[in-house]
This record gives sequence, structure tokens and C-alpha cells, in this order.
Amino acid sequence: MMAVSEVWRAKARARLDTLTKPLGSLGRLEDLAAQVVAIRQEQALEPLRCGVYVFAADHGVTAESVSVYPSEVTRQMVLNFVGGGAAINVLARLHGVALTVVDVGVDGEFLDLEFQGVAGMVHAKVRRGSRNLRREAAMSEDEMAAAMRVGERMAEEAAVSGCNVVAAGEMGIGNTTSASAIAAALTGASVRLVTGRGTGVDEAQRERKVRVVEESLALHFGLGGGDEPTSQKRDVGHPILLARDVLRCLGGLEIAAMVGFYVAAARLGLVIVCDGFIATAAAAVAVGMVPEVAGYLIAGHRSEEPGHAVLLDHLGLRPVLDLGMRLGEGTGAVLAMTVIASAMALYGQMATFAGAGVSEASA
Amino acid sequence: MMAVSEVWRAKARARLDTLTKPLGSLGRLEDLAAQVVAIRQEQALEPLRCGVYVFAADHGVTAESVSVYPSEVTRQMVLNFVGGGAAINVLARLHGVALTVVDVGVDGEFLDLEFQGVAGMVHAKVRRGSRNLRREAAMSEDEMAAAMRVGERMAEEAAVSGCNVVAAGEMGIGNTTSASAIAAALTGASVRLVTGRGTGVDEAQRERKVRVVEESLALHFGLGGGDEPTSQKRDVGHPILLARDVLRCLGGLEIAAMVGFYVAAARLGLVIVCDGFIATAAAAVAVGMVPEVAGYLIAGHRSEEPGHAVLLDHLGLRPVLDLGMRLGEGTGAVLAMTVIASAMALYGQMATFAGAGVSEASA
Repeated sequence: MMAVSEVWRAKARARLDTLTKPLGSLGRLEDLAAQVVAIRQEQALEPLRCGVYVFAADHGVTAESVSVYPSEVTRQMVLNFVGGGAAINVLARLHGVALTVVDVGVDGEFLDLEFQGVAGMVHAKVRRGSRNLRREAAMSEDEMAAAMRVGERMAEEAAVSGCNVVAAGEMGIGNTTSASAIAAALTGASVRLVTGRGTGVDEAQRERKVRVVEESLALHFGLGGGDEPTSQKRDVGHPILLARDVLRCLGGLEIAAMVGFYVAAARLGLVIVCDGFIATAAAAVAVGMVPEVAGYLIAGHRSEEPGHAVLLDHLGLRPVLDLGMRLGEGTGAVLAMTVIASAMALYGQMATFAGAGVSEASA
Repeated sequence: MMAVSEVWRAKARARLDTLTKPLGSLGRLEDLAAQVVAIRQEQALEPLRCGVYVFAADHGVTAESVSVYPSEVTRQMVLNFVGGGAAINVLARLHGVALTVVDVGVDGEFLDLEFQGVAGMVHAKVRRGSRNLRREAAMSEDEMAAAMRVGERMAEEAAVSGCNVVAAGEMGIGNTTSASAIAAALTGASVRLVTGRGTGVDEAQRERKVRVVEESLALHFGLGGGDEPTSQKRDVGHPILLARDVLRCLGGLEIAAMVGFYVAAARLGLVIVCDGFIATAAAAVAVGMVPEVAGYLIAGHRSEEPGHAVLLDHLGLRPVLDLGMRLGEGTGAVLAMTVIASAMALYGQMATFAGAGVSEASA
């Protein structure tokens, strides 16, 4: 995989400095435009076409009572996506972002939908939910590879359909538990720090989540409990193997699909907008496997989940938005796409000082 | 003026809790939707129509060398607005926001434009620039009132044309000096704290700006120099008189127009999105005159100007965006309008748990 182009980033900076505004006065918008140019290079001025892929799967770890919602909600929310009533539908419609819903592992069937071939819904179920990561590996090696291929295929379809900015969202009751385990394993942060309230558990339920995550880390990686940072206790292996191992043991089918999606999207030279906690856990795995992916990532927002900030720091990403959201589905990423689109419109359409006859600053 | 409706805000909260998402998981978007409903009440579900009014005027204080740009840039940038090449043009076009440029005090003529009657440009010049606030009051009482009436008229035209969400932007070389003086006078913060680099002055020039602001406060309000907070030295009068006085002595014609715009927009029940440092200085004056205006204000963003955070705190406003921008023109407000539009689309279009057949959370 190619790293993003620092030559093109510098060209973008030089162009930004000719536009009719005080130097640097567009702040983060200038950084975003320069990053898009570093990724898209000669194609940077093509119109942006944005796509969001929502990967849905269930999680065996819900047997440990880690969520206030029953597992059935994953399937119900997929039906809500198909019906157009979920938050991501509303935002994607409003902002002209193409939405695709991907069943990569929902514990339920969509026979009517499959039969009808509903537009914007992809049936690619690998297994009816991942295994309970507190008791065994969440996926077999083959299941993980299959789920990753689903994500890869979606990135390839996005590129073929002309998308140049993509995001992955997710739906999967139980998946903040999986993301917390991944965050602790990859960043070395304490389990307590990276385990939040998910969809809204109370303090006692959060304590149970913490225990489930700690026991999972102990089971798969021999890491003890307690409040010390996980990193002080682990025997760090080769990072690429570690990321793959972490994903297989602690991940979920939708998280594996997102990992495959990110790696393929970066390989295809697409701009990747990262959504919330779970999407960023997947991004951390992807960067663990292929470090060059990092240059293609824009952090769309910072969610309320405490582990999200830890993962963003780990990846060296600054979020575009900070709106206290904690919904997933790709919602934060789609909102951030409007900021990225703004940055690129400014980059492409503003007049220059010379062109508009505006005096420049004195030294 | 009516205060915004807390009854309607509570109704909005109740509705948000029925939508297919974990309770509160849309974070700030839920606060924004509830505030828009508190302002718009029975009209809250009408489609949003957004308008931005860019008020332009020159400042006599530029004689004190407080900017790296010459005064002529105000007029040149108005021509750039008319030509469609400035940042605010690009953002307004992209996001479907109606843009109107208002000459309320540019030190130069636009005879051809007046003759041609260019669409989206309003000629309402009160005076060719405000007076040098370091030596005399920036405006006479009559000039200030005339400029405020220009802003009022724009808010009335916005309402007549069907806008329900409005912002004021500004263009005026020298106006961060004026805004710093207003911020110090109204909040009691030290001049040094609220005086920044504007369009990009260096540290020595910033020191000159600090002295100009201190000397202005001494001239008009008998406030001494030094680093102590201004509030420890001033003899606070009746706050409404003070705000009017502060505006007349330290303001500018575009700032006075924005004050009139805000007060009228609130009276008309419009949602007001506040832009950056200068726009927020005007908002602080408006709230000083008519405290109920505060409920109609949404802080679009936090700019890089250090005085902006001080003014936002003073007004009790949390910015929607924090992108390190410092451009003015209404650019931050227009970006924030996309977030507000998102919040209202979610509020109006998401399915309910009951309607979509999605199980609710267990207690």
C-alpha cells in the first residue's frame, strides 16, 4: 500500500495560502483539505461522492448481560434501516450520502428482503452472531477472514460506483464490550478507562462489563485484572499478529468487516471517515495490520464513550466534531462528511488574491 | 420580547426520547433540536430556510496600524462577495444558505453595483467608516441608531422571505480591535486576554492593539491600563445603558447593524446562529440591551481569537463547532447550520420505537 503523498499535501498548503482569506484562517478545514489532497492527489478536485456502509452483526457476549437492549434489536434496527427510519437514514438522505446496509452476522434472517432484493441492503451473513468472547474466541480464523472479505468487497464496490469518501458504521447489540476489549488490548489502557455505558447501562452494569472484558483479556492473552494499564502486564507480540489475534478473539463479525473495509479503501486511495468508538476500534486493528492505513483516516467525531478518546490518541487522530454523540451507525462520520465537503469546496472554488484583486497582508 | 418556550423545549425532549436510538445518544444534536423547538414552537417542523447577512464597514481605528491588511481590503472583499469568490460564498452555495451582503459603512463607493442593482447586495451605507475609537466615540448616537436600523430591516426581510434560521457575518478591516474593546468592557476580562492576532498580526503588533484598546477604554470609560481584569476598575452603570454606550464608543457600523439584526431576529422568533469573535461581541451587546435575546442564540463555533471563548462564557453559550477558524464573514455560522439542519431532520424524520417495532431498553 502507498503512503499518502506529502508532496501533494504541500502543494495543497501552497494553494490554500493564495486564497482570499487571512493565512491559515480556515483552521482545521485547511488541514482536512490538505489531507484529502494528499490522499486523492490529481483526483482531488473531482466532485466528492460520499458513501456509508453500515455493517450489522450480533455478539455472543450479550449472554453476559452487557447491554440494556436485547440482541433482537440488531435485527429490528436493520429493518429500521431498510425502512428509512433510523438516524443514519435521515442524515444520509439530508446530506446526499449513499447508504448501504450489510448483514455480515445478524442472528436472524431477512428472507423476504433477500427474496425482494431490497436496494441498499447486502446479504453477506458469515455466521449468526460471533461467539461469546468471554468463553472462547469470538470468531474462527476462517470466519474472520470471510467477514473481512465482505468489508473489502464493499470498499471495492464503493470505488467502482464512484465514491471517493467512505465511512463504515455499525449496528450490533453488545459491540461496545467488544470494542472496549480491543481498545484495552491494542492501546494498553486500563479496562476500566475504556469501558463505558454503551447504549446506557447503569454503574452496576458497567462494572459487569468491566469484569467481562477483564476476564476475556485473561482468557485469550493471559492478562490479569486490576486497574493497572493493560500494557504493563502484556507480553507484546509482533504487532501485526497481535492486531489479527485481537480481532479474532475479541472482535465481532461487523468489526472484522470494517477492518477489511478500511484496508481495502486505503489501498484504493479513498478518503476514510472514521465514526465512533466501535468504528475506531476497527480502525486501530486495521492500522495494526497495515500501518499505512492511518494516513487515509479522518476522525469524524469524538463520541461520549470514554474509550474513543483513548483510541483516537493511540491513532494520533484529532476528531472533526465533538457533539457528545454515542449512537454509531456511521452518524458521526456522515456529519463530518459535510465539513470535509465544505473544506474541499473552499479549496476548489475560492478566488485567489491575485484573481480577485484583493490586497495581501503586509509582512 | 417573549422568552423562548420551556414548555416546548420539554415537549421536544419527550419526543426525542421516543425515537429509535438509545436515550440521549444524539448528544448536542438533541439540545439543538430542543432549542430550535423552544424558539419555533408550533412552527418547528417547517422546513428550515437559512440566511446569512454579511455586514461590511470600515473602522477609523485602522489609523492606529492595528491590522496587517489595509482598509481597502474591506471594499475589495465586498467585491469578492459580489463576485462569488469568498469563503462565505462557497459555503453558502454548498449548503443552500441565502447570502446577502450589506454595505453599512464601507469607506468606498460601489456606484456601478448600485446602478446595476446586483442581487444579494444591499446599499445602506450610514457613513464611510466609523471614527477612530482611540480618539473619539466610534459613532454618534444617530449613526449607531441608523446602523442598528439597517440590521433590523435585514432581519425583517429575512422573516418575510421565509428564513427561520439566520446568521450575521461581517467584513471590516480593524474590527477585531473594536470587538476586543467591547469584550473587555462587557465581560470585565483583561484587555490582554481578549486581544488576539486578528487577521495575523505579530506579537509586537498585538502589543500595539492591546495599548490601543486600553487607551480607548481609558478615554471613554475612565478605565486604567494594566493587566488586572477591567471589571475591577470600572464603575458599572445600568447594564442596558452600558451596552449601548459601549457599542457607540467602541463598536463599528457593521457591529451596530448586527446588534439591531439580532434583537429584531429574536423579536421575530427566528433562530440566530452566532458566528465568530466580532459577531459574538455584537451578540453580547444585544443581550446587554435585551436579555431575552440570549435564548435565541446558538453559538455556531469557537474561533481562534482568544476573546471569543471569553464572550461565549459570558453569554453561557457552548459552541457547536471548534475548528480553529478565524475568518468571520459568517463562515462558522453557516457550517453550524448544517449541524442544526441535521438535528432538525433527525427530530422530524426518525422513526419511533413503537412505529418501527424496535424493542426499548430494559430498566
